[in-house]
Amino acid sequence: MVGNTLASKLVEGGHEVMMGSRTRDNEEAVAWTKSAGARASQGTFADAAQFGEVVFNCTSGGKSIEALRQAKAAELGDRILIDVSNPLVFAAGSPPTLSVSNTDSLAEEIQREFPNLRVVKALNTVNASIMVNPALLPGDHDLFICGNDENAKAKVARGLTDWFGWAPQNIIDLGDITAARGMEMWLILWIRMMFAFKTPMFNLHIVRASAP
Amino acid sequence: MVGNTLASKLVEGGHEVMMGSRTRDNEEAVAWTKSAGARASQGTFADAAQFGEVVFNCTSGGKSIEALRQAKAAELGDRILIDVSNPLVFAAGSPPTLSVSNTDSLAEEIQREFPNLRVVKALNTVNASIMVNPALLPGDHDLFICGNDENAKAKVARGLTDWFGWAPQNIIDLGDITAARGMEMWLILWIRMMFAFKTPMFNLHIVRASAP
Repeated sequence: MVGNTLASKLVEGGHEVMMGSRTRDNEEAVAWTKSAGARASQGTFADAAQFGEVVFNCTSGGKSIEALRQAKAAELGDRILIDVSNPLVFAAGSPPTLSVSNTDSLAEEIQREFPNLRVVKALNTVNASIMVNPALLPGDHDLFICGNDENAKAKVARGLTDWFGWAPQNIIDLGDITAARGMEMWLILWIRMMFAFKTPMFNLHIVRASAP
Repeated sequence: MVGNTLASKLVEGGHEVMMGSRTRDNEEAVAWTKSAGARASQGTFADAAQFGEVVFNCTSGGKSIEALRQAKAAELGDRILIDVSNPLVFAAGSPPTLSVSNTDSLAEEIQREFPNLRVVKALNTVNASIMVNPALLPGDHDLFICGNDENAKAKVARGLTDWFGWAPQNIIDLGDITAARGMEMWLILWIRMMFAFKTPMFNLHIVRASAP
């Protein structure tokens, strides 16, 4: 669903997007390609990863490493991978937890497994519809970004603005990829807010003593 | 430092406050008592816990359980304990981590160890000076609260308003004490922001599709 939302917005913005799945003829991917128009296509994870100048990981957190192995992510050189995933574990009757947290993060696992990739963690802290349309919420509200490569982060930050409409002052750079721990741990707080508000349509704004 | 800040504000507001320490003649507590005036006093953890209608746990997260044992917290009946602590672990050269997180929290540990206490997690998500003076930051910004006892939460929420000036619409009730996981995990993200901003003077505001 996250991948579909991001891909549709990118296609609307004039970008060519290939949706990757485990199989080339995945029904949902084929349906998306048909509905999204001429700039949309689908293929295997490896097809899509090879196709993209920038690769988005929108797979389920527990399956991300395996999906990226299928994507032959080790053969992608220093490509930028935007990691949107969250390592959430849902168990019946209990609050959701994370499969990795505190001393490590999924983004770091990905960076370690594929050291040549330039992993940038972004967008995982909000609902998919807000990712691609921050104007759904009033006023200023913020995204985080982190990663080890400054150029990659700068390119992704520009993309968040150009592709999805995030104002530059609402993108907070938290430093290297270890900051993904906090960005992923936020989900545990986020989920409790979603329960309390009965909607995922919210985000945080960081209020500081001096502007912004 | 957190306890000193909270106690001083409460004394200023006309409340009688006893500061608890490991020993009755703790130098910093004695100095605080002298400077804070007639409504301030100090004693052992047990003296202070017995004294208070409401007890604040402002001890270091890693020492909280032991401090509460010294406070004879098991003998306090159904007193309200406001848990302000965070289970932070600082190790040289690494980002701070939590000693408990994800599937448990310090507040839950305290609630399990002292099942009669009515534990309310609050205030741990902001810097001490903001805890007692939310007007240090402009406009709306928010606190979380959680706990298993609705009456205790309601009383603490009123206290946050009456004692410290938090507007009721800026206090978000996240439900039972398991929500303390997210409130404590927030610190990992908070610390990275403190590094990025080079100041602890910030807080989050939750922006929703419809007011507030």
